[in-house]
Amino acid sequence: MTPAFDNLVQRLRKLPGIGFRSAERIALHLLVERPGALPELSEALETAARNVRRCAICGNLAEEERCAVCSDASRDATRVCVIEHVQDLVALERSGSYRGTYHVLHGKLSPIRGIGPDELNIESLRARLDSGGIAEVILALSNDVEGEATCHFLSDQLAGRGITLTRIGFGLPSGGGVLFADSTTLKSALDARRPYL
Amino acid sequence: MTPAFDNLVQRLRKLPGIGFRSAERIALHLLVERPGALPELSEALETAARNVRRCAICGNLAEEERCAVCSDASRDATRVCVIEHVQDLVALERSGSYRGTYHVLHGKLSPIRGIGPDELNIESLRARLDSGGIAEVILALSNDVEGEATCHFLSDQLAGRGITLTRIGFGLPSGGGVLFADSTTLKSALDARRPYL
Repeated sequence: MTPAFDNLVQRLRKLPGIGFRSAERIALHLLVERPGALPELSEALETAARNVRRCAICGNLAEEERCAVCSDASRDATRVCVIEHVQDLVALERSGSYRGTYHVLHGKLSPIRGIGPDELNIESLRARLDSGGIAEVILALSNDVEGEATCHFLSDQLAGRGITLTRIGFGLPSGGGVLFADSTTLKSALDARRPYL
Repeated sequence: MTPAFDNLVQRLRKLPGIGFRSAERIALHLLVERPGALPELSEALETAARNVRRCAICGNLAEEERCAVCSDASRDATRVCVIEHVQDLVALERSGSYRGTYHVLHGKLSPIRGIGPDELNIESLRARLDSGGIAEVILALSNDVEGEATCHFLSDQLAGRGITLTRIGFGLPSGGGVLFADSTTLKSALDARRPYL
């Protein structure tokens, strides 16, 4: 079509779940069918890029120094649920079965993809536990080899602090992560959590 | 999550084919997983908004006064293929079976949706035919009631100029438009075009 149009289609194709046809359809929607939507989307992107950062405490998305969960005094700050992705927090919040706080690792250990402890948000978890007031750490990591390895690593790292370490319970299908579980499965998994090691 | 994040998700949801889950996934992709993609997408949107306009001749997307098809001297300018949407042009070009020019109506007559002749890019088609040099107008409109009505209207409007008026041939499945047809179907339909009225 035109260079600017083709470039927009290429950028849209890089988004998750968007193929060539969808990208073309979205670009034409923005440029031809509903041109008013383009500046709105553009502005929403810029505002998000400018305002959204990581929570200094837990690594969740935030617009202030602390995210909505960490700055909510009604949450149980003695519990920290360790998760891989921000999406996992969204899924757990949607299940309505957890009132503690979170810690987002932004991934899991994966030697094969070159992801070691330094690539994950682990140092701030250690600092958080050292500063005291945490009674339980719930490991809500994927039920797969990499999730298992990450749990092992964390249990080694966080040992000796007198903090109860649990892992999210049976209920997650093998090979699957928190992201794709339904709310009932997540609730049963949280209820069935058991001491880890 | 955060206001700017939620707003971005809302804007993304308005795109065709994007549901809530996809919008959330894309927003997190842009803000967490691949933050470098956000400014690229943002810039692509702005460049497209700034540079892409309608071709003064045919209504296709263009970055100059004329689109790539209208400014291509190797195209057969004596033939004009009338289509509903820019997407239809993309589909016809992909089929490789047409070397003439186009005229994009940006819709079809639809009293039920309040779309009359004034809402379509018809006036410029009339001016284009009046200026001479056109031997054939090929109506490549949908094989449905509204497409049929638009063909009737155009044949009334364009009559008396000594221009051959044809309609794209059998091959389009009933009720479907050009957009969803495969290249072979489009080729057979173009080959089988017949005089209209």
